[in-house]
Amino acid sequence: MTEPLRLGIAGLGTVGVGVVRILRQKAALITERTGREIAISAVSARSRGKDRGVSIADYAWEDDPVALATRDDVDVFVELMGGEDGPAKAATEAALAAGKDVVTANKALLAHHGQPLAEVAEAAGAVLRFEAAVAGGIPVIKALTEGLAGNDITRVMGVMNGTCNYILTRMEDAGLTYDEAFAEADGLGYLEADPNLDVGGIDAGHKLALLAAIAYGTRVAFDAVELQGIGSVTIEDIRAAADMGYKIKLLGVCQMTGRGLEQRMTPCLVPAASPLGQLTGGTNMVVIEGDHVGQIVLRGAGAGEGPTASAVLSDIVDIARGTRLPTFGKPAAALTQATPAKSVAPAPFYVRLALHDKPGALAKVATALGEAGVSIDRMRQYGHEDPVAPVLIVTHKAAPDALEKALSAMAALDVVDGMPVALRIETV
Amino acid sequence: MTEPLRLGIAGLGTVGVGVVRILRQKAALITERTGREIAISAVSARSRGKDRGVSIADYAWEDDPVALATRDDVDVFVELMGGEDGPAKAATEAALAAGKDVVTANKALLAHHGQPLAEVAEAAGAVLRFEAAVAGGIPVIKALTEGLAGNDITRVMGVMNGTCNYILTRMEDAGLTYDEAFAEADGLGYLEADPNLDVGGIDAGHKLALLAAIAYGTRVAFDAVELQGIGSVTIEDIRAAADMGYKIKLLGVCQMTGRGLEQRMTPCLVPAASPLGQLTGGTNMVVIEGDHVGQIVLRGAGAGEGPTASAVLSDIVDIARGTRLPTFGKPAAALTQATPAKSVAPAPFYVRLALHDKPGALAKVATALGEAGVSIDRMRQYGHEDPVAPVLIVTHKAAPDALEKALSAMAALDVVDGMPVALRIETV
Repeated sequence: MTEPLRLGIAGLGTVGVGVVRILRQKAALITERTGREIAISAVSARSRGKDRGVSIADYAWEDDPVALATRDDVDVFVELMGGEDGPAKAATEAALAAGKDVVTANKALLAHHGQPLAEVAEAAGAVLRFEAAVAGGIPVIKALTEGLAGNDITRVMGVMNGTCNYILTRMEDAGLTYDEAFAEADGLGYLEADPNLDVGGIDAGHKLALLAAIAYGTRVAFDAVELQGIGSVTIEDIRAAADMGYKIKLLGVCQMTGRGLEQRMTPCLVPAASPLGQLTGGTNMVVIEGDHVGQIVLRGAGAGEGPTASAVLSDIVDIARGTRLPTFGKPAAALTQATPAKSVAPAPFYVRLALHDKPGALAKVATALGEAGVSIDRMRQYGHEDPVAPVLIVTHKAAPDALEKALSAMAALDVVDGMPVALRIETV
Repeated sequence: MTEPLRLGIAGLGTVGVGVVRILRQKAALITERTGREIAISAVSARSRGKDRGVSIADYAWEDDPVALATRDDVDVFVELMGGEDGPAKAATEAALAAGKDVVTANKALLAHHGQPLAEVAEAAGAVLRFEAAVAGGIPVIKALTEGLAGNDITRVMGVMNGTCNYILTRMEDAGLTYDEAFAEADGLGYLEADPNLDVGGIDAGHKLALLAAIAYGTRVAFDAVELQGIGSVTIEDIRAAADMGYKIKLLGVCQMTGRGLEQRMTPCLVPAASPLGQLTGGTNMVVIEGDHVGQIVLRGAGAGEGPTASAVLSDIVDIARGTRLPTFGKPAAALTQATPAKSVAPAPFYVRLALHDKPGALAKVATALGEAGVSIDRMRQYGHEDPVAPVLIVTHKAAPDALEKALSAMAALDVVDGMPVALRIETV
């Protein structure tokens, strides 16, 4: 048997404790699977004395994660602190520069600094793995980088923020308003310290940017992700969507087109009967489409101690087994800079507007749509008590440009109250 | 750049041609992903001259797959001939013994000879990979062996024979009888030359046995799989199941219990609203449950040129990248011989019987169930014209032994016509 693989773990929150726990519970099983003992040399966290339900007395302690990352008795630096800059970045860079492999769950770090970190890793002959950064326990990075490596990827879609999906599911199932569902999620501890990371779509956008880089061999381009959170989704939208056979999801989509790389993380309607439509609560789902494999759907817990620690372990096990791949599935120098592209492919859209209930009002709306080249598939005007009637429209496939034009034209009408809301209907 | 990785491909049917096609189409992409050119040195098939829609003129030809497998210019032997013995086995053994890596899509070969082949591979320092053998394009072997390597697997379930699922779906959607749906599948070329491999559950049983070996670190034990095909499922069963909120699937389940390894591939009822219940047509689904990761669901095309070739390519790409794992995720010598166990865990069951419509008949049935310790959750007697009435029962959770006793007791009743049919209701 070869020498033990020695870990330095920085960050002993939920996930870090989960990793320590699994390594202690399953030492024999993991050694049998890898042919190598996996040992923890040292750990680092904010507070040494805190009771974490698992003993860290056997491990050396470092106050400074950078010192931990570069210890002689550490082969693999396991970064579970989080944060796109600060200590996580400094320690990851220091570890890689010292030729140590790094396993991280930090999507923000990689979404912002993935390219330079991949370059540092390669220059030093180290590997940088991040299965836990995307979709929790679902082995989606592995599926995309390895399992589907014989395919040109045609589209990747996903519901990758469990908190948003929880809020949307509660609005739908329990008839809560957005604010009520948000408060409930907050009370359950589901929200990040900065809730906008969740409900603003940023966290999910980080994950999408990482998947796009692997799928298309491009440099991570989080800044190019079209982001829209779920804060503007109303209970009326959810009910109207359900009424027409759809669910509303914060859906990430990336695809390479002739004009460049499309990346969007926005609330979309998906057919209620589709796998994405049937996803409830905090569960994540990633749909990968390849030219040969067709459509692959992966579903599982997107967060939590066990699932995330499971993903961290899979990266550690790969390293122990000697598997060494480039960070994004290709050498860093071969990753291309994609041109960001807005979606121009026609899609059906859901449109909600508030209409002053006057004779000829609906005709004006229909005319505005028609003049912009947008045709109506279904339209419903709901019963109402106040003078403003909710009107819902599902369009036939329309070019996004044409839809924008129609929305502006409708907003300018004296019979329309405020700005109409439009959500894309995604074909899945 | 290192030397090209040189393949010898035996078998140029649908999958073999797919592999050749992808390698020709995507040479540059694959080289970029692996850092290594992948070249085909030589091929072998039944007929050299056949038009396959792809040229094989660039490759050396061997009539004998064993000769192909051991050529000096072959690093990886790609076995796509099929068959549990004969040339596939001889050539695979010869390749491994010569220290060459092997990639195969042959579930029958591995289900019957997995252990000795893994031993030969290990002794020679070769790897034996078989992603394409289970669930087509879904990277399920990789997910189980690598992605979930930090878990103790608690259960693996799957719908893994697309032909059976197609037949069951057509019975349900189009109201066809089993014989009609079978004939339709046959006309579409969906059935193996020996249809019993499909509808008898053997092909799916092979796949389950391979997943069980990886999940539990045990020697492949196909002979211990409890097999029951779909031939006895009637349109009445399908309708009655639907009426009570279930679908019927040929479902594989394996789990390790205190008494040993349970492996069964039998028609089961699953909730219509569950991911397994919603699976239609030829699509496959594998559900993996781990102690830390929770439930992971993988779904995709289970057969066909593109998906299967995609899986073969993923194994080839792994080898080109230098990934080298033991065949079943552990050294062959560490795989244990599991005690085969029949399921004793209580489950709800669906029971269908033909009842002579006489006063007190139903009471006799209920008594027989009660005396065996089986309690009734729901019972329906359907309207009928002949003197024998169809009666459907959903039991509360019952021990399989108790159910067997109840079935025998009911069959012995003068008011029951023939043997009652029982199908397990699987909790998913």
